[in-house]
Amino acid sequence: MTLDHGDPGDAPSVPQPTAPVANPARPSPAEEARTVVASTNTATLASLSADGAPWASFVTYGDLDGSPVLCVSRLAEHGRNLAADPRASLSIVAPDAPSDPLAGTRVTLTGVVEQPLGEEARRARAAHLAAVPAAKHYIDYSDFTVWVLRVRRVRWVGGYGRMDSAIAEEYAAAQPDRVAPNAGRAVAHLNDDHADSLLDMARVLGGYPDATAARCERADRHGLDLRVETPRGVARTRVGYVEPISEPAELRAATVELARRARPE
Amino acid sequence: MTLDHGDPGDAPSVPQPTAPVANPARPSPAEEARTVVASTNTATLASLSADGAPWASFVTYGDLDGSPVLCVSRLAEHGRNLAADPRASLSIVAPDAPSDPLAGTRVTLTGVVEQPLGEEARRARAAHLAAVPAAKHYIDYSDFTVWVLRVRRVRWVGGYGRMDSAIAEEYAAAQPDRVAPNAGRAVAHLNDDHADSLLDMARVLGGYPDATAARCERADRHGLDLRVETPRGVARTRVGYVEPISEPAELRAATVELARRARPE
Repeated sequence: MTLDHGDPGDAPSVPQPTAPVANPARPSPAEEARTVVASTNTATLASLSADGAPWASFVTYGDLDGSPVLCVSRLAEHGRNLAADPRASLSIVAPDAPSDPLAGTRVTLTGVVEQPLGEEARRARAAHLAAVPAAKHYIDYSDFTVWVLRVRRVRWVGGYGRMDSAIAEEYAAAQPDRVAPNAGRAVAHLNDDHADSLLDMARVLGGYPDATAARCERADRHGLDLRVETPRGVARTRVGYVEPISEPAELRAATVELARRARPE
Repeated sequence: MTLDHGDPGDAPSVPQPTAPVANPARPSPAEEARTVVASTNTATLASLSADGAPWASFVTYGDLDGSPVLCVSRLAEHGRNLAADPRASLSIVAPDAPSDPLAGTRVTLTGVVEQPLGEEARRARAAHLAAVPAAKHYIDYSDFTVWVLRVRRVRWVGGYGRMDSAIAEEYAAAQPDRVAPNAGRAVAHLNDDHADSLLDMARVLGGYPDATAARCERADRHGLDLRVETPRGVARTRVGYVEPISEPAELRAATVELARRARPE
């Protein structure tokens, strides 16, 4: 994990854990990026104009196993750009951005676009139409081209100080997390009704035996992000499940097991 | 007005007006673009990586008389890119996007970034902080640079079939529309309580004497966009006010005057 920015300034000293963190497992940057790409259907494309200058434009996309599928017109500048130079980059912002925009999650993908052939052309078209139903009105127009972005480099930013890069192979091997985008109600339930269990988790599993309060900020397929209050200040820690889960329906059992393991004897 | 795309397909034949449109006044493309830029504080930047490839990244901006003001870190790839090559493009999407993303309003600005000096540096900093309050935590860090985009070319897209370009001089001379972003309740009131007046407007001022129903889709400082039903099909037309208005508070008087002029004797 690379810190691109310093702390934004409100919390200059973060208390360190005073005991081992039992299981710090969390999504890889590639998995985080796949999750963002799977979360929406709009992006901004950076392409190259005829003079080599960058051109930013709003686009829709479908998700073909992590490869964005665009459908753009050659009558539009971005369509002409891609036809002349296949180098392209997409910025995708996760929905439900927080009030401080830079605290939100987004990803940059770069690579080259290609026109898919044969079976991949059929799958790419289906992926675009599944994500963008209105495309049925124009996808067959002669001025439109379906492009697949061959992703070579990935930059994921999960807010202040949460950011990392991934390469094509890691990104291609990762899967989107189906738990994180559907965990909102479970997280609210943990905070509303199980604050005592969260505090036990922070003390016993999260490395903060001196915690006085804990809130869950996020749940994903690997575990929970906790915000921990201590007499030394506010920290964030991680409590990973015994095993990663795959489906939102498994979240309840995984958190019950965490609570059981963290319960004082 | 240039049509980049064909009609998306649902309405292949649009009935033409059979009488003159009394006042088709509407915002210029430059004015539409200024209004989008004034409407939010997030954008996607297209910059050039060291190898000349495009790089798309999420940014925040302030609005300095139409020139976006960025504040980015040289520790981030887009910050390094701008420092090495000032060519840049921004895509800005108007908030409250419709469910069909391509029916929404967005703008592409291209040009070069410059570090402002002297009095402009003070104003640029103030514009960024006014739009992005959280920037107070990092704007003075040594790795951050404030950049002003010198806009050379503008592309505005207002949804399917509504799009046009503007050059730097037109864009610089335009003003954002303060009416359009604040007209939602007035438009709803017109549709809910004054459908008869809207129908009169479509018949007498909008060029559709055979209209059987009319809805207002949008109001801006120049007039109303109407969706008109006729026995020949559905059309869209324009009813401009006698004079453009400047403030949302003037909208009521302007539409009352339109209704009076359109009322049958």
